[in-house]
Amino acid sequence: MTTSRIDKLQSYMDAHNLDAILITSPRHVYYLTGFATNPHERFLGLLLPRGAEAKLLVPALDYEAAQAASSVTSILTHSDTDNAYEILGQLMPSGIRHLGVEKEDLSVLRFEAISAAVSAESYSDIGLPLREMRAIKSPEEVARMKHAVRIVEDVLRAGVAKVRPGVTEIELVAELEFQMKKLGAQGPSFDTMVLAGIKSALPHGTPDHTKIAEGELLLFDLGVYADGYASDITRTFAVGEISEELQNIYAAVLNANLLAIEAAREGVTFGSLDRTARESIEAAGYGPYFNHRLGHGLGMDIHEYPSVHGRNEDLLRAGMVFTIEPGIYVPAVGGVRIEDDVLVMPDGVDVLTSYPKQLTVIGS
Amino acid sequence: MTTSRIDKLQSYMDAHNLDAILITSPRHVYYLTGFATNPHERFLGLLLPRGAEAKLLVPALDYEAAQAASSVTSILTHSDTDNAYEILGQLMPSGIRHLGVEKEDLSVLRFEAISAAVSAESYSDIGLPLREMRAIKSPEEVARMKHAVRIVEDVLRAGVAKVRPGVTEIELVAELEFQMKKLGAQGPSFDTMVLAGIKSALPHGTPDHTKIAEGELLLFDLGVYADGYASDITRTFAVGEISEELQNIYAAVLNANLLAIEAAREGVTFGSLDRTARESIEAAGYGPYFNHRLGHGLGMDIHEYPSVHGRNEDLLRAGMVFTIEPGIYVPAVGGVRIEDDVLVMPDGVDVLTSYPKQLTVIGS
Repeated sequence: MTTSRIDKLQSYMDAHNLDAILITSPRHVYYLTGFATNPHERFLGLLLPRGAEAKLLVPALDYEAAQAASSVTSILTHSDTDNAYEILGQLMPSGIRHLGVEKEDLSVLRFEAISAAVSAESYSDIGLPLREMRAIKSPEEVARMKHAVRIVEDVLRAGVAKVRPGVTEIELVAELEFQMKKLGAQGPSFDTMVLAGIKSALPHGTPDHTKIAEGELLLFDLGVYADGYASDITRTFAVGEISEELQNIYAAVLNANLLAIEAAREGVTFGSLDRTARESIEAAGYGPYFNHRLGHGLGMDIHEYPSVHGRNEDLLRAGMVFTIEPGIYVPAVGGVRIEDDVLVMPDGVDVLTSYPKQLTVIGS
Repeated sequence: MTTSRIDKLQSYMDAHNLDAILITSPRHVYYLTGFATNPHERFLGLLLPRGAEAKLLVPALDYEAAQAASSVTSILTHSDTDNAYEILGQLMPSGIRHLGVEKEDLSVLRFEAISAAVSAESYSDIGLPLREMRAIKSPEEVARMKHAVRIVEDVLRAGVAKVRPGVTEIELVAELEFQMKKLGAQGPSFDTMVLAGIKSALPHGTPDHTKIAEGELLLFDLGVYADGYASDITRTFAVGEISEELQNIYAAVLNANLLAIEAAREGVTFGSLDRTARESIEAAGYGPYFNHRLGHGLGMDIHEYPSVHGRNEDLLRAGMVFTIEPGIYVPAVGGVRIEDDVLVMPDGVDVLTSYPKQLTVIGS
């Protein structure tokens, strides 16, 4: 798998007249070699010379781990007393002119050290081909994402079981993150969100000592990292009986969520999905209260390509994974968001999240 | 406080012939204005023209929060449909030649956008003056760090109370991080470490389902962020009775910790502290098993300047905060580390951590 990814970058070099690509972000070294590490401030680099063998340069203390995990077998090391950039310069094919680097993930300080050692004529950003490759998940990546979804759904179930009037948002956040660790996640994939009552109407609210109360909404938005891949789910519940208005809001959000899922399949645009959800919420009379995009790509990052908004006319392709998360937020009344993770298939989507979505009364 | 920090950068511009400084990292915008935000991928910039008023450019949705918190009162905004770099270019004094930027915190991609908009002749790194300023903590920063220490010590006490033979490392990690949330921390300042038995001899070990057992060591290394500042503490305990060898190792580490603390005061070198601790461990016969530096600076980052190692001949200055954390790690036998956070005073150090250090038997 990692070998075919490197092959794709070789084709990219041919097409764009690059003499080599230098990968310096740990996540893309992992993506292209299978070797995961956190080098902290030490230098880590994967050198892909055009038409020649890939070379991996790692801190000396990572050598055994790299040997065990990396599909790239030419592995060189630098110790803390070496100048890693000098070694990099020696590894570069001579007379290199055009080098591809990750400009979004590379600091100016490190770039200056690299360019001083390498002396290429030009440096191109290779963020785009990496982003495109990462957008289409392999079966192994899908398996990992399903595992991350399974964990977060078990975590959510455990958290919901602890809901009682009087419990605080922050206590529920702590319980959820406790369960993440216990169930084997690496950790949360973003700041876990539990918002009670009218705070559910704040899409970027912060959990605090607000207490759960009867007759109110309770919104959970959480995700985990497991084996390097993220999951992300939102569910909104009723604590005891809630007003008819809140029930109507819930029904409108659920309807939008289901319509967007139904419309999603290979070949339609991301924009059309956003518009499908938005039009149904407008028809229910809540248009102005759905004030964010429909969703975002998901994978090694919690937010990655594609962005699912009304002006994105890119096409869904089989193997993409993204969120569908319409919401309605009425200030001083309450907010509902229902978020699923979906995998694009030729004839529809595989909804990875399976936590029930019918309005459910909890906490009694 | 933030105003005097900006004054220092004005003096730096005078001394280094810079026409302006552009701050783009959220932590340094916070440090210099008091306004804390996470702009995600949106642009945030603090422009300090030499001899003129500072200007803060924030995403539109941050405007109210910036107004409420920032000591810089000239605040401009950009919306998602604006080109933030164009606005930045218009804010720059005309004819600017030498601009200071944070090269370590700035991506090549963003730097290219800035330099296209600004067209300066040269760009200097201002990492060094910021690092120097941050090394000396203000009374307010010290108060925040003491608060972060208080929280982590309460967390440790709660975790220690849960130790029983049969409990796993990962369960204790979960309990500790649960307590962090409950006690009001923003979160852990690094991956919480609980290592049992011979795993305590792995300075970079990972907690797993290993069970706590009688007659073994149990090492806790944890910290929290609170109000933007980090704490960091390590304590090692005996679960039931431990061997004489483990007791000897503990005594040697404690002795090294106490000697280094006693030697620390304004004007001595960091290297001398490391050597003091190392020589006492060598005298106890465990020299080869103390295989890392004595400590590291602590503040808004969990690891920041200064690095406390044997070749650092920089002088301790009043107001610096760093860790003192000698350790002995004997493979297949066990490891002990005892870590305190200290604040440099003219005549010694104020030890911020107060958790007892005498060998303590727990878990029964």
